[in-house]
Amino acid sequence: MFDTLLRNVNIATMADGRAPYGAIESGAIGVKDGRLAFVGPMAELPAGLSAAEEIDGNDMWAFPGFVDCHTHIVYGGNRAREFEERLNGVSYEEIARRGGGILSTVKNTRAASVEELTASAVKRLKRLAADGVTTVEIKSGYGLTLDDELKMLRAAKAAAEEVGLRVRTTFLGAHALPPEFKDDKDGYIAHVCDVMIPAVAKEGLADAVDAFCEGIAFSAEQTARVFDAAKAHGIRVKLHADQLSDLSGGALAASYQALSADHLEYASATSVRAMADTGTVAVLLPGAFYVLQETKRPPVEMMRQAGVHMALATDANPGSSPVLSLQLMLHMGCTLFGMTPEEALRGITLNGARALGLEQDLGTLEEGKQADILLFDISEPAELAYYVGGISPNRIISHP
Amino acid sequence: MFDTLLRNVNIATMADGRAPYGAIESGAIGVKDGRLAFVGPMAELPAGLSAAEEIDGNDMWAFPGFVDCHTHIVYGGNRAREFEERLNGVSYEEIARRGGGILSTVKNTRAASVEELTASAVKRLKRLAADGVTTVEIKSGYGLTLDDELKMLRAAKAAAEEVGLRVRTTFLGAHALPPEFKDDKDGYIAHVCDVMIPAVAKEGLADAVDAFCEGIAFSAEQTARVFDAAKAHGIRVKLHADQLSDLSGGALAASYQALSADHLEYASATSVRAMADTGTVAVLLPGAFYVLQETKRPPVEMMRQAGVHMALATDANPGSSPVLSLQLMLHMGCTLFGMTPEEALRGITLNGARALGLEQDLGTLEEGKQADILLFDISEPAELAYYVGGISPNRIISHP
Ligand SMILES: [Zn+2]
Ligand SMILES: [Zn+2]
Repeated sequence: MFDTLLRNVNIATMADGRAPYGAIESGAIGVKDGRLAFVGPMAELPAGLSAAEEIDGNDMWAFPGFVDCHTHIVYGGNRAREFEERLNGVSYEEIARRGGGILSTVKNTRAASVEELTASAVKRLKRLAADGVTTVEIKSGYGLTLDDELKMLRAAKAAAEEVGLRVRTTFLGAHALPPEFKDDKDGYIAHVCDVMIPAVAKEGLADAVDAFCEGIAFSAEQTARVFDAAKAHGIRVKLHADQLSDLSGGALAASYQALSADHLEYASATSVRAMADTGTVAVLLPGAFYVLQETKRPPVEMMRQAGVHMALATDANPGSSPVLSLQLMLHMGCTLFGMTPEEALRGITLNGARALGLEQDLGTLEEGKQADILLFDISEPAELAYYVGGISPNRIISHP
Repeated sequence: MFDTLLRNVNIATMADGRAPYGAIESGAIGVKDGRLAFVGPMAELPAGLSAAEEIDGNDMWAFPGFVDCHTHIVYGGNRAREFEERLNGVSYEEIARRGGGILSTVKNTRAASVEELTASAVKRLKRLAADGVTTVEIKSGYGLTLDDELKMLRAAKAAAEEVGLRVRTTFLGAHALPPEFKDDKDGYIAHVCDVMIPAVAKEGLADAVDAFCEGIAFSAEQTARVFDAAKAHGIRVKLHADQLSDLSGGALAASYQALSADHLEYASATSVRAMADTGTVAVLLPGAFYVLQETKRPPVEMMRQAGVHMALATDANPGSSPVLSLQLMLHMGCTLFGMTPEEALRGITLNGARALGLEQDLGTLEEGKQADILLFDISEPAELAYYVGGISPNRIISHP
């Protein structure tokens, strides 16, 4: 007895090591108590089974719910005006002088209540969800004071709940230097490690700790201090690594058994090997690459050869990636980074789940896992990457 | 007495020569018999007016319905498999040898019934419509026999009607050389001019005639013959011009008072001046530019200085632009081509309408025009270009 039985579907299970896309054609999916109780060919469906609800899949394709494993989707204000000013010829310097850039987002985020942050994030999350995202990661990092960071993490949970999304929150205090610590990066990192991480851990508000390791942000040594503090509180880490230059961020992340290292345009062979060894996921973010019109691509072929798990995410943020379409990242992952459609789709399913430590529960359509199922009226899985910006799911079945 | 009265909206009328975006803040819109009967500030709304339906705009922004003025959205099959093969390392030559490319679309289009073509186009048009497109242009050009071209044009009308979109159809017989005329471009052009255009005109199935003027397609001289035939039947023309090389396509189009010349990456200063003189719209297609990873941008600054009307469209087609998001073209028009958000938005409203000869009726929110109205829950008009891939309209009011 299933709660729901989906008949006559082609199933892109996205499980590793099977047919392309882990595909099962002419299949059936049985759901019981929010879990996948049967996934297999129609022919193997046990006889005499009943189900409270039966759905005819009409030969559509079923996918696991999509996982957007890297977003900064909670923030105050937005930077549309700054975007417009730049296109009208105002220089970056002038915009900075007017208080633009990330610090304008920090200012607006601090000024917003948790309810306001929640409401604006809900609007954006709805757009992600409409296209099939059922699990989302959301980072803090625009508060940069303890209270404002906690406020962001609370808003992240509240917004995801309101939209019906499963959420994983990441504390990203080490995102940028707040004005209060001008010219004192070490002082701010000490505050992050000694005050903020313990408080976040105590409140149970973050599933991971992240940092931005880059010339314009924090050094590898400062990042290591943040990671040590996270480790001391038993929290897994992630890293914004090697986006604009090679600081061996991938290797640093791997040395802490990070869940993921993200961006990685400039990652070295050493970093790639280290990530392969530890299973640290490479989260590739073609939206920021496209928006910034970067030219150095992440070493996808090297990662492929080394067996690094590659994920794709929107990096949804108000500055470098105001992207609200995870399916668009499929096309960009292929066209800009040279991923195959199958790699791209695995990047928003199984490997997206891996980047959040959720691969036991999510990311494939396999018996025992959560029953987050998307139905698409397409002829083959690659269509989702082929249509620029993707297409709408015909149906979303989700159990957040 | 209005049929519908929309109160408390900010109105991006998109009319030329006013405030940015033709904006009216704190406005109201009255609709009567499907037309705009009042567009102005709330303060100027005549007293004592009633309306059968009143809508509170809640300070959202109203835009004219979006116009996608260049699509090839009716076709058989799709080329997702070919997309996947290329990313898996199969060469263009090998794909051509397997019968890929445009000729595979011609084959699948010929094999499809009008009902099948309609049904597949409906799925894609729904995606466009969900994001605010209320008027769409659809070209033939994958049939390349009289019957198959007529079939495509009929499917275009049927699909648009099913989705509730206003449609303009364009006959593009001179799109590619069909196998039947191998090595005989002049012979095919003669067939287009002497047989196909008269038949299409007689059936009243096309609002415009288009051609693909390019080294890999038809010459300027062959294009002129097609245009002469269209003129003889009183049908306005459009042109795929100067996409991959400068064949003075823009000037050729202008010399026939074409509605538009489209693509234009390689357009010369002479072409730009000629288009400005005749009011021929420059339809820019950043989706194809992005998919093909081209590097030569259309001369936007030159067009801006010359006063050429610039439109933006998806070029939705199965090969070089499987784009189903017109709002994504806003961001790409800005980021890839250097348009301002206002130019980009005018490109999918007023100038999109101009490219179809519909500017008297559509493209702005001005009294007397059709009442196609989109409501977006945003703080300023530029947000639509700023979010990569755009956001969902809160409400679509349309009168196709
Ligand atoms: Zn990020
Ligand atoms: Zn075209």
